[in-house]
Amino acid sequence: MAEVIYPRMAVIGCGLIGSSVIRAVRRAGVVETIVVADASSAVRDRVAELGFADEVTGSVADAVKDADLVVLAVPVLAMEAVAKAAAGSLKAGATVTDVGSVKGQVSEALARNLPDSVFIVPGHPIAGTEQSGPDAGFAELFDKRWTILTPLPRQDDPYLEAVQQLADFWTALGANVDRMDDKHHDLVLAVTSHLPHLIAYNIVGTAADLEEVARAEVMKYSAGGFRDFTRIAASDPTMWRDIFLANKDAVLEILGRFTEDLQALSRAIRWGEGDKLFELFSRTREIRRGVIAAGQESPEPNFGRDRERH
Amino acid sequence: MAEVIYPRMAVIGCGLIGSSVIRAVRRAGVVETIVVADASSAVRDRVAELGFADEVTGSVADAVKDADLVVLAVPVLAMEAVAKAAAGSLKAGATVTDVGSVKGQVSEALARNLPDSVFIVPGHPIAGTEQSGPDAGFAELFDKRWTILTPLPRQDDPYLEAVQQLADFWTALGANVDRMDDKHHDLVLAVTSHLPHLIAYNIVGTAADLEEVARAEVMKYSAGGFRDFTRIAASDPTMWRDIFLANKDAVLEILGRFTEDLQALSRAIRWGEGDKLFELFSRTREIRRGVIAAGQESPEPNFGRDRERH
Repeated sequence: MAEVIYPRMAVIGCGLIGSSVIRAVRRAGVVETIVVADASSAVRDRVAELGFADEVTGSVADAVKDADLVVLAVPVLAMEAVAKAAAGSLKAGATVTDVGSVKGQVSEALARNLPDSVFIVPGHPIAGTEQSGPDAGFAELFDKRWTILTPLPRQDDPYLEAVQQLADFWTALGANVDRMDDKHHDLVLAVTSHLPHLIAYNIVGTAADLEEVARAEVMKYSAGGFRDFTRIAASDPTMWRDIFLANKDAVLEILGRFTEDLQALSRAIRWGEGDKLFELFSRTREIRRGVIAAGQESPEPNFGRDRERH
Repeated sequence: MAEVIYPRMAVIGCGLIGSSVIRAVRRAGVVETIVVADASSAVRDRVAELGFADEVTGSVADAVKDADLVVLAVPVLAMEAVAKAAAGSLKAGATVTDVGSVKGQVSEALARNLPDSVFIVPGHPIAGTEQSGPDAGFAELFDKRWTILTPLPRQDDPYLEAVQQLADFWTALGANVDRMDDKHHDLVLAVTSHLPHLIAYNIVGTAADLEEVARAEVMKYSAGGFRDFTRIAASDPTMWRDIFLANKDAVLEILGRFTEDLQALSRAIRWGEGDKLFELFSRTREIRRGVIAAGQESPEPNFGRDRERH
């Protein structure tokens, strides 16, 4: 049996990530008692049916009482309201973390609303699928994926110990753990996650709105590449609206770079500059190899989605 | 045993698609003798080792002699040279098709160079992976994927019969077959394939060139969405250079729409218009469902790439 890291854990918001944390915690055996709070009665009913929590409640204040670890797993712009609801009921010495995809704004919201008696350690597991809700989660979601912690600028020993304890927790859940400054996190994620989602949402929207090409044609002939983009463009709309609003500056900066590069590429096509195209298309191949070598991607062709076919 | 559709088939160019056609033909049993021509001696040696062709040659003229079906499976801008090399040796009444991703320009190149005694039926199987070469092919590649034929504007019975015979051939290889005008094909594919590849190449290039975010970070944290784009950005550089040059007008037109939409999205983020973002992100979800319903995508989360993980 694994060592218990936090006797009592409260998870606020039980969607894809919240429910995956719970399943991974149960697999790891690092928590004794699991309490879930969710604002949706449908989600609460489903969590009760799934049977992976010891207690299910609609009250954030009730859920966090006596908890050693509180995991906020709600959309980024809902974090502040949840922090306010939790503030008066938190146990002194508890660790409060979150799983939000934007860290600067969330970190400020937590620091502004939570008491000094708790350890605030913002975090972000870089893992997910395009699906949502408590049924979508699974225990292996975080295996070999990176969780980034963005600790506050505190150097006191109790705080550093709380950060280390949370890092150990994520390691027990199967993740690799990194620490970085929250501003840098938000820039890195604007590149590796937010811009890709923005581009995917945009191209799927463009294709859906064309008059010259029917939607049925777009869907039928999507195996030429388009279908890949539909996956992340099927991600949760609330979650992603919040991310773009909360990480506006970094997203717009990276989007500016992307647009500049796209204009150069467009010009190369217009003027028939084949060498420029060939040079870019050769370089990008190496990045794929690096992603696979970093253990973050299947080496199989077509993501292995054709595995049953050959 | 299946009925033989073409006693003798020549495949010119034995990469991912050419070798998949051969493997699918062998599975279907619709050809008696398979001849391969490839300009690369390394590819010819490998094809001989793989043992799926009856004859392997470096000469297009030798390969097409006596062939009932000639399949041109070379990059789009190499089609014209191959057509010229084949022209003097083609059997009267042979069908000549291709698998190029652009149809208008290829169709013209074939019509300009091939004798009137053969049936030219341009085609495009919408299937593939990001890998290249004779080892990358597999017999199931075309199963349930669409092959589009873009026949010439000829209405004589022998030609229409040749088109139907080629449609039957692709059906035997597992594909669904559609017919359309080559200009419409090029516009549809600009949306469902060429623009997605352009965007993917561009975003991977942008991410690789940033000074503020290290390449190692881009790779480590790519599971947030970026890794999806690296797949199609790992596709064959020569093939894709040729596609953008050969389908310039349609690609630039669709790219213009994409850019316009992206500017509107950028503006919505800048001005904090959450409702606009939410509306788009909800609509795009439906397109994913349509692609899955059309049988062109795995319904599993993350393309099924995490299948082994849960």
